[in-house]
Amino acid sequence: MKLDHIGIAVKKLEISDKLFSKLLNRVPFKTETIVSESVKTSFYHTGESKIELLEPTNEDSPIAKFLNKKGEGIHHIAFEVDDIEKEINRLEKEGFSFVGEKIRIGNNQKRIAFLHPKQSNGVLIELCEKK
Amino acid sequence: MKLDHIGIAVKKLEISDKLFSKLLNRVPFKTETIVSESVKTSFYHTGESKIELLEPTNEDSPIAKFLNKKGEGIHHIAFEVDDIEKEINRLEKEGFSFVGEKIRIGNNQKRIAFLHPKQSNGVLIELCEKK
Repeated sequence: MKLDHIGIAVKKLEISDKLFSKLLNRVPFKTETIVSESVKTSFYHTGESKIELLEPTNEDSPIAKFLNKKGEGIHHIAFEVDDIEKEINRLEKEGFSFVGEKIRIGNNQKRIAFLHPKQSNGVLIELCEKK
Repeated sequence: MKLDHIGIAVKKLEISDKLFSKLLNRVPFKTETIVSESVKTSFYHTGESKIELLEPTNEDSPIAKFLNKKGEGIHHIAFEVDDIEKEINRLEKEGFSFVGEKIRIGNNQKRIAFLHPKQSNGVLIELCEKK
């Protein structure tokens, strides 16, 4: 498993993009709205991995709920896997479980899945399938 | 800036090492006690970057304080820089500030610094100098 990206929940992408552009000394290489997840995102290269900033597009967005409960901060970390079904099977056999609809479509039309954070020391972990 | 590692605060390294070994399907490549930071750590390769698990070695450890306040979860993310003094100067000019003693010694005897999380959307960011 290779770390693919770190997802950071923010209130206003416009403000946070200015901040992270200064911090990382570069501009985002991509912005994308993911309708199914109700988020607007921007991505920064940080070597092999990426930073994803996520702003909710409505109050039902999981990111809106996260912001209301915990405030801005790291929301999830994502690992790239070759075969998401095989990896889900392996992890389920190890006793892990998955949140909501097991396989969904994330950014770049990749197949993704989220592990239940209660089983991973409070860290929300995404699997995203290589394209 | 290249992502170097993600630091995750845990209560018991022994328990979390079992969990993350299953999750990442590999064993830690290194364990290290950093006396100056009062932490016991273990490291996992996740591609170019790494996962660092941190258990406090006493109640004064910053990790013990984090666990008491927020529970287990992501504590910081670290970026590798070529020249830490140059990068601190650049960021200070951009309006960022640093936590505590500006430059300290982290794992692998690397020089490290922590940015104030209030200025980076609640994310504690470490800079670590390439060796």
